[in-house]
Amino acid sequence: MNAEAVVAELAQKARKASRSLSTATGAERKAALEAIAKAIESRSAEILAANVLDMASARAEDMHPQMQDRLLLTAERIAGIAGGARQVAALADPLGQTLRKSTLANGLELEQISVPFGVIGMVYEARPNVTVDAAVILLMSGNAALLRGSSSAHHSNEILVNVMKDALATTKISPDVIQLIPSEDRATTKALLTARGKVDLVIPRGSAALIRMVVDEATVPTIETGAGVCHVYVDEFADIEKALPILINSKTHRPSVCNAAETLLVHKAIAPTFLPMALKALSDAGVILHSDATAQKVADTFKIASTLATDTNWSTEYGVLEMNVAVVDSVDAAADHIAQYGTNHTEAIVTENKANAARFIALSDCAAVMVNTSTRFTDGEQMGFGAEIGISNQKLHARGPMGLEAMTTTTWIVTGTGQIRS
Amino acid sequence: MNAEAVVAELAQKARKASRSLSTATGAERKAALEAIAKAIESRSAEILAANVLDMASARAEDMHPQMQDRLLLTAERIAGIAGGARQVAALADPLGQTLRKSTLANGLELEQISVPFGVIGMVYEARPNVTVDAAVILLMSGNAALLRGSSSAHHSNEILVNVMKDALATTKISPDVIQLIPSEDRATTKALLTARGKVDLVIPRGSAALIRMVVDEATVPTIETGAGVCHVYVDEFADIEKALPILINSKTHRPSVCNAAETLLVHKAIAPTFLPMALKALSDAGVILHSDATAQKVADTFKIASTLATDTNWSTEYGVLEMNVAVVDSVDAAADHIAQYGTNHTEAIVTENKANAARFIALSDCAAVMVNTSTRFTDGEQMGFGAEIGISNQKLHARGPMGLEAMTTTTWIVTGTGQIRS
Repeated sequence: MNAEAVVAELAQKARKASRSLSTATGAERKAALEAIAKAIESRSAEILAANVLDMASARAEDMHPQMQDRLLLTAERIAGIAGGARQVAALADPLGQTLRKSTLANGLELEQISVPFGVIGMVYEARPNVTVDAAVILLMSGNAALLRGSSSAHHSNEILVNVMKDALATTKISPDVIQLIPSEDRATTKALLTARGKVDLVIPRGSAALIRMVVDEATVPTIETGAGVCHVYVDEFADIEKALPILINSKTHRPSVCNAAETLLVHKAIAPTFLPMALKALSDAGVILHSDATAQKVADTFKIASTLATDTNWSTEYGVLEMNVAVVDSVDAAADHIAQYGTNHTEAIVTENKANAARFIALSDCAAVMVNTSTRFTDGEQMGFGAEIGISNQKLHARGPMGLEAMTTTTWIVTGTGQIRS
Repeated sequence: MNAEAVVAELAQKARKASRSLSTATGAERKAALEAIAKAIESRSAEILAANVLDMASARAEDMHPQMQDRLLLTAERIAGIAGGARQVAALADPLGQTLRKSTLANGLELEQISVPFGVIGMVYEARPNVTVDAAVILLMSGNAALLRGSSSAHHSNEILVNVMKDALATTKISPDVIQLIPSEDRATTKALLTARGKVDLVIPRGSAALIRMVVDEATVPTIETGAGVCHVYVDEFADIEKALPILINSKTHRPSVCNAAETLLVHKAIAPTFLPMALKALSDAGVILHSDATAQKVADTFKIASTLATDTNWSTEYGVLEMNVAVVDSVDAAADHIAQYGTNHTEAIVTENKANAARFIALSDCAAVMVNTSTRFTDGEQMGFGAEIGISNQKLHARGPMGLEAMTTTTWIVTGTGQIRS
């Protein structure tokens, strides 16, 4: 059977089974997640054993240590995955919410309610935890899940999916609402991305390269996630006591994630006082610096290691302890730099001047604007969503961290007494 | 200059100019629309003259009469276009609305507000009115408009865009927020659909073929509009007094549009009484019938012209006075037929039984469910949106008729006092 046929069959199974979710009560969906959490805990030995096989091949193939760490499952991590499922089960039911309601002049009653998408595909890399994290968010929001993970995690993914299916078999929800797409063959990914009418939405989660591939090849609706070239702009009216910790936290707290800052923009009026201490603090924190001409002079003066930034530097998402520094003339100049090199993810301004903050907000075209706080707060957990399936980096449907609500769509119910259109 | 460069330059101009919209007040955007409406009225002679040129080539090329009618502009139609712009100007401002607001335990203040997309592309066919209808909706929602119409309407589109730009020149809004993409060369469409990062969203408006092309070729986010294979299900508990007018209205009121019905499903228990009068009424209204075996027997018995429906019939959007008829055993059987052949647009049930209505709603996976009313009410004007840029036939972002709100996205504003993440 070719890849298209394989995916079509799995999608059809998922679609049929999804009715057991769309007609289930919130309590029944919560119970299904509880069953999954319990099963993952009680069968962690099996899960660890399967992960050992994946880790062995990873070592044999000299997989990058950082990727090996993402692939690795431990007793603690498995407990964390189960805990995550319980956390989602405890969230408010996103389905059946009345979003808009009105009565028309002709007596028709309009009501817009939240409903599931139906069948949602996930394309991700060698992180087995995503297999469960994504599945439980999709199930809780009433959607069947088509999971296309990495072949290097296939032993781990297979056992995790089997454990979840076995758990569902003891509930009102059909086990077929979770389908693992074979990962030996890259063609199954392409088939998933072009299964129009069979799959309602595909969400990529992983590297910029993976996201780009999905966006380029998909004919089904997708949500672009990820890429973040975030900026911290220290305004002329910034409180330096706040600016320094915000800068260091935004860059160094967790450099590998998308809401970490890559570029520092400093207003020329505050540069003489702020720049020396900022460059030193970054340098002391082990951050490699790339500066514009003005900042480079300061670095040289104070014997702080830095090289002149190139156009490539300004648009690079480092993901490591490396940062660009530029001096700008105004809020608008900062916004212009961000518009040219940013990725519309998260931009921060440090200022005590309300007008400058408002101007920065109006000119920043991004998912989140941080005023006097760290870029690291663009995060579903931190923002109180309780769970996050990814951070949307596009403007369609959902922007920024996506929780359960983002995995629902709507339907209009129009109730009449025989009205016709004249 | 190649197509990519042309589109890139126009998109860049539009992006720059869009700041004059995102920083403008609602009153300033309304004033811009008023100016456009007035200019269209005062320069209607020029517009008619340009349209004459397009109509001449259309006749020379033997364009289908129905398409010629869509291309044609008259004094009345131009007045209608101007009136439409005023109607949009009178709507509530969709920007700057607070959608969610909360304060986190760490004191951070979260606020989610509605903001423009930025630059939105429209791809449409030889209907010059769309040039203005789309532009004013996009401008009112704070977005710059990249308009890619049909080459067969280029004289009309050029004068309409010039009139709008001249009108904007007298306002606070930059004329560059409206850009007409050259239509001689098909390559410009492809360039628009793949201008990632330069264009935030592309909306196709027109035939199923056009929409399919956009969906297949686009790498920028798109919203699928259009295709509607809508059903009217007459339940065993239907009030025939309501069912008959709803059926006739759904099929014959305006067969060419997407919310017209293509298939009638009748419960077997009511078929003996309802089917004969339904088939006769449809036939008398000039509707060509395609029936399943059961309905065909009824048609033959009562000497009503009908042919046996094929699989193709069930999935065809006729757009003309042609309809399929089938008898089903239950609400679930009706839902199964709809799931197999429908396009998730609009489905109607006629019943006095609340449980059956609820079951039909739960099983219908569509933009709008009509209970005891005509499918023709899935319409922005009818639903009180005041304006409609299209009817979304996908589940992402917007579902069903799209008004001003659907042309906005959101941004999170997180305000702190120096909070960092630990």
